[in-house]
Amino acid sequence: DPEMIGERQVEKVDMVEVTERLAYFAMENPDLCRSWFLQVLSMPDPAADPFWREYSGSIARFAQTDLAKPGIDAEAWSIISLAGNFLWPVWAHSHSQGEAERHALAHRFAREMLRLSLHGTLQPDKVPGVAARLAEPLDGGQASVIPLRSVR
Amino acid sequence: DPEMIGERQVEKVDMVEVTERLAYFAMENPDLCRSWFLQVLSMPDPAADPFWREYSGSIARFAQTDLAKPGIDAEAWSIISLAGNFLWPVWAHSHSQGEAERHALAHRFAREMLRLSLHGTLQPDKVPGVAARLAEPLDGGQASVIPLRSVR
Repeated sequence: DPEMIGERQVEKVDMVEVTERLAYFAMENPDLCRSWFLQVLSMPDPAADPFWREYSGSIARFAQTDLAKPGIDAEAWSIISLAGNFLWPVWAHSHSQGEAERHALAHRFAREMLRLSLHGTLQPDKVPGVAARLAEPLDGGQASVIPLRSVR
Repeated sequence: DPEMIGERQVEKVDMVEVTERLAYFAMENPDLCRSWFLQVLSMPDPAADPFWREYSGSIARFAQTDLAKPGIDAEAWSIISLAGNFLWPVWAHSHSQGEAERHALAHRFAREMLRLSLHGTLQPDKVPGVAARLAEPLDGGQASVIPLRSVR
């Protein structure tokens, strides 16, 4: 159901709903998650994958809105998010005993994604070196000019 | 090099160094990243994977320190982080033209991980529904009692 994260106006999106729908969709489709990994791992150009293109495009649009923290790298964050969403069910299905448990595990994953999105993982005042690193320019700007997105 | 995130004292860890070392390690070893996915995707019990056990264990210890934001789901966050770290090089290698560009792309990924860890992705005041959701109990506590970690 890539439409759920597709071309709709990202400003109007309910972040809780979108996050939970993706987590539930992945949990209900473990074979699709597995196939997606196998496919992108074997593609000469994974950035041509239509699902990732759709998803990273919606993240890029979201990053332009005032709902988003500044400085999000849409390509990197979209890979982190998709990979996590699609790998979690592989773990969960091997350990859960039925639909109710899998639903609970999808809920748990969505919650961590929401917690991460809202709060991150680090206490800023305890890790001043991280803020200092982020204040540095990005490898003289070089990395920012190398897009991952396929243009073919 | 799983030792780099292993049994050392997590309170003493330099988060910038650890984050960048993992990103560079992954970028320099794309075949290992690919093999890791193929292996965990085919395992009957992915939670038995020694690398993930080591990594999620170090995240769990980190989550207990005062460097960490409260409420991190160590199993979920460790899968999100590992999956992203190991999938990014698959994209990057198909698009980069040499060692310097790959190094720059690893740096870029590490930077997004640090930015995400410090700031998250959402402006809290713009998405009050997310904080409200996080204030709710986790499916009556059910999901929290289903560990993903293999005990075999």
